[in-house]
Amino acid sequence: MAAQSDLRPGEVTVDLPAGFDAGVYFIGRIRTPFKSREECPKNTAESNAVGRVELDPRYAAGLRDLDLYSHAVLLYWMDRARRDLIQQVPAHLGHPRGTFALRSPVRPNPIALAVVEVLGIEGATLTVRNVDCVDGTPLLDIKPYFASTDSVPGAVRPGGRGR
Amino acid sequence: MAAQSDLRPGEVTVDLPAGFDAGVYFIGRIRTPFKSREECPKNTAESNAVGRVELDPRYAAGLRDLDLYSHAVLLYWMDRARRDLIQQVPAHLGHPRGTFALRSPVRPNPIALAVVEVLGIEGATLTVRNVDCVDGTPLLDIKPYFASTDSVPGAVRPGGRGR
Repeated sequence: MAAQSDLRPGEVTVDLPAGFDAGVYFIGRIRTPFKSREECPKNTAESNAVGRVELDPRYAAGLRDLDLYSHAVLLYWMDRARRDLIQQVPAHLGHPRGTFALRSPVRPNPIALAVVEVLGIEGATLTVRNVDCVDGTPLLDIKPYFASTDSVPGAVRPGGRGR
Repeated sequence: MAAQSDLRPGEVTVDLPAGFDAGVYFIGRIRTPFKSREECPKNTAESNAVGRVELDPRYAAGLRDLDLYSHAVLLYWMDRARRDLIQQVPAHLGHPRGTFALRSPVRPNPIALAVVEVLGIEGATLTVRNVDCVDGTPLLDIKPYFASTDSVPGAVRPGGRGR
């Protein structure tokens, strides 16, 4: 965990529980052109980058028929992020906002979600478009994207880019 | 883990790794009208049910400003699901499909994703519409929904209901 002195004014930390409640497996790695967080696009909408989702070969059969879908959801683990900030002051915002009202990697369970275009499957590798994460990011899950439940084109957010 | 005899023809299991790679905290519970999986709607699109997301009070500050957004993503833990099926034969489908091409709770990391409408915040409780999970389901994360990156209204899936 980072020191208290790394906090911006208005940021709040939480005492995390002493132990975990469940465990996750890293089922693969996401290979992208981005070697550091600074190189990453701001989000998937700003990325046309093609990436490879390389599964541990034991899970290869799990990809069967995923290419019937045009899009998929990737859940991945932001393994470099601190987990104890519950209120954050993003630089682009300049005032405090709750962690659960932000898509920051800093959160109690650093699970990120990205909607990607499915390009193809070859063995244990899935090729996708719109990746936005650092090369080598650990993967937790892949799900088919269902427009009927996952797409809310009219969803409202506070005005302005990146808010 | 269930016995091999619980498998349908065409279903395939995987030898899961001996240990976990990371740990998650249950940050709260989702309270819904559904006391069993049988009572649950098939998915969020078929549910107008209102539910309460009850956070552990330590995380209450994390909700600040989430009500600026009309919709949120809930990530929750399907704690009753087996984790070792990599190819499944859903009853509605009748033939094998890869686990990562299904939204089944049965998967190596049983993390579910639901897009819900934000109704309000009171203390450590978030009220939402469109819940579809069993009452008491452990919560992992809440994220604001961004139509710009999360909504793909034209996403294609194989024809037919529930495919």
